[in-house]
Amino acid sequence: MKDVMRLPPELQPTNRRVEAFSDAVFAIAVTIMVLEIRVPDTLAFASDMAALEDFATLLAIYVLSFVVVGILWANHHYLVFTLPTSDRATIWLNNHVLFWVTMVPVVARFFGQHPTSPRATAAYAYVIMMCTFALTLLRRHAARVTENEVHRALHHRVFRRAWVAMALYAAAIPIAFMNIRISWALLLILPALFFLPVIRLQAAKDEVHRAMEHSRP
Amino acid sequence: MKDVMRLPPELQPTNRRVEAFSDAVFAIAVTIMVLEIRVPDTLAFASDMAALEDFATLLAIYVLSFVVVGILWANHHYLVFTLPTSDRATIWLNNHVLFWVTMVPVVARFFGQHPTSPRATAAYAYVIMMCTFALTLLRRHAARVTENEVHRALHHRVFRRAWVAMALYAAAIPIAFMNIRISWALLLILPALFFLPVIRLQAAKDEVHRAMEHSRP
Amino acid sequence: MKDVMRLPPELQPTNRRVEAFSDAVFAIAVTIMVLEIRVPDTLAFASDMAALEDFATLLAIYVLSFVVVGILWANHHYLVFTLPTSDRATIWLNNHVLFWVTMVPVVARFFGQHPTSPRATAAYAYVIMMCTFALTLLRRHAARVTENEVHRALHHRVFRRAWVAMALYAAAIPIAFMNIRISWALLLILPALFFLPVIRLQAAKDEVHRAMEHSRP
Amino acid sequence: MKDVMRLPPELQPTNRRVEAFSDAVFAIAVTIMVLEIRVPDTLAFASDMAALEDFATLLAIYVLSFVVVGILWANHHYLVFTLPTSDRATIWLNNHVLFWVTMVPVVARFFGQHPTSPRATAAYAYVIMMCTFALTLLRRHAARVTENEVHRALHHRVFRRAWVAMALYAAAIPIAFMNIRISWALLLILPALFFLPVIRLQAAKDEVHRAMEHSRP
Repeated sequence: MKDVMRLPPELQPTNRRVEAFSDAVFAIAVTIMVLEIRVPDTLAFASDMAALEDFATLLAIYVLSFVVVGILWANHHYLVFTLPTSDRATIWLNNHVLFWVTMVPVVARFFGQHPTSPRATAAYAYVIMMCTFALTLLRRHAARVTENEVHRALHHRVFRRAWVAMALYAAAIPIAFMNIRISWALLLILPALFFLPVIRLQAAKDEVHRAMEHSRP
Repeated sequence: MKDVMRLPPELQPTNRRVEAFSDAVFAIAVTIMVLEIRVPDTLAFASDMAALEDFATLLAIYVLSFVVVGILWANHHYLVFTLPTSDRATIWLNNHVLFWVTMVPVVARFFGQHPTSPRATAAYAYVIMMCTFALTLLRRHAARVTENEVHRALHHRVFRRAWVAMALYAAAIPIAFMNIRISWALLLILPALFFLPVIRLQAAKDEVHRAMEHSRP
Repeated sequence: MKDVMRLPPELQPTNRRVEAFSDAVFAIAVTIMVLEIRVPDTLAFASDMAALEDFATLLAIYVLSFVVVGILWANHHYLVFTLPTSDRATIWLNNHVLFWVTMVPVVARFFGQHPTSPRATAAYAYVIMMCTFALTLLRRHAARVTENEVHRALHHRVFRRAWVAMALYAAAIPIAFMNIRISWALLLILPALFFLPVIRLQAAKDEVHRAMEHSRP
Repeated sequence: MKDVMRLPPELQPTNRRVEAFSDAVFAIAVTIMVLEIRVPDTLAFASDMAALEDFATLLAIYVLSFVVVGILWANHHYLVFTLPTSDRATIWLNNHVLFWVTMVPVVARFFGQHPTSPRATAAYAYVIMMCTFALTLLRRHAARVTENEVHRALHHRVFRRAWVAMALYAAAIPIAFMNIRISWALLLILPALFFLPVIRLQAAKDEVHRAMEHSRP
């Protein structure tokens, strides 16, 4: 990596296109899921509780997947922002993230149509775990190449949380075959954790300020 | 919010990627609707009035949905333009807008295939109302964080119109079960209101000039 | 329009997002067409001349549509480049262009599946004509608001060609019902005309140089 | 080309939109492939080895296609970065690349559903070969119009490898009808070759340094 950084600037494109390509893949992954969500025709003029229940389940799993992809995108957004140039490692670690993001619609459909299947629940947990893992690999690269101590401190802070999330998603896989309700609970609670902003923001700020004091002595 | 604004610039990405991600979601939402619009095969060599009528209805609801998403995009365009940075609240209020925009193809398909169903009409009105509501929440955030009085004046001006639109979409929901024609009329008239530019432009300019006088004494 | 131009710069977003939204719609319109192009399963291990012929027709009409949308995009690219800001009229004349572009996959599918149907041929010609017409309306707006004489001269040059193209597409509609082969020929020849670069480039340059002499006396 | 370069800057848009349009097409091409990848319903609650095998094959060919499109995108990224303006030739050589990229989902689906079909294997090899060929034509144009010796040296370096790749993809076409396993091996090995970074990077750097010494005497 260090060697790549020494190439002349005319061989170092910025991250603009990595961002544009990623934004498009995230946007398509989140949007093509709705192609599967059809309001059942039987609901147009009559009450069909079974059809309504299937539709509500599919919709709920779409909402969950939308939130998960939204969290991944928000993390990706801040992460790529800290990367100065798009070297070869960045591009392929990023493509690795995008690959797992495109798998989300595949498992969301399977899970949405078979919500009581332990295998479907496990497959869904596995793909979200791999998305988080791929993003963590990209973040490790970002933490290594950056020369900005504030960014590095933030990356290290997020690592800890990411490993906790991955461990819980990994746990949800075998748990799905033992007690599927606990597995569902994990899939629901993990994104919700992301939305506890106050504590995290305060902690992040303290850490950032500490890092800033260290880097500007 | 105010606290977020005080973070150093290296922790504040611009809105460029929020815009790019949103543009892609809007564009896909508007375009995947055409995947459902198939010219009936029976129309290729013969006259089939029933098939033609179904196709014309589907096409008409696509045109309506294209205009509605176009109006939402145009509003979003000006709105995000007034937001200086992409803090956490901006990203998630924006994702909330995008979620409801991705619901438009779902209800457009249902409404397009069952135009005489009060439930389909109500579902369509509900989703458009929620799109407007989500955009209003984002606008409220924009009005709060901006330091530009001209932008704030414009936001406050649009609030009033947005609440009128939401109230009428909300009214269209129960009305669909009483007199579906009035509900259809509301769905058609509301976007048309947006295209009365002269009056609004003049009023907006007066208000902007008043705000500019206040802010540059 | 002139009035809009006098608004302060903080109320005038640039065309960046109009471009991004348009690029996404053009890209999706061109790409979702391939969702319809399935290599027939019967061709995997055996020769099935009928299936091959259907597939070849669908592929040929995809190639034609790709070229047509490519021409529209290239024109749109240069056209929006000449527009300094995105006022209300620009946005809605542009959305009008995008609407007709999203209709291309609809008629391409119908034409591809029923190539010998005069109605399908006419519908295809009609949509391409409307795309050209919508782009011409946007160009007329660009020619009106620009203060750059070189751009205006180029716009006026393209108008003449656009009207010829629209007249020939319009002619292809009734001709499809009289002699479908002539209609097909028109659909094939019109995009090909666009690829006679030398003559046009030379003429455009002469005209541009003339305009430049006039504007810099 | 040289003549085009002499046009005044107000007639020379940058490559920004060529990049944005291309990014969207690449992103959609890579993402719509997953629309075809459905986890078989029979796998939800039971073991169905035949369905699992079909699914695994489809998934494997999706992974291969994702990597191939990723390589094409990474090459396109660096290539367009070296192009200063978007002249007519750039746009149409680029559209030619995009056309073949949109063909990847078509042949990936055919190959994924009939992996043992020599014709499907050959069709897949043919489309990837044409993608590489189209990118090489664009690169030849870039090498011709650039005034940067470092870029030109890199382009000439890549040409040699591109011709080797094209020759091997071309060989995979007839080989598919003789010994399909060798053809599969070629399809798998060719992208893998791209991931031998050390040798190539060192060689590229030597060459770049040599070119820099020549251009700055």
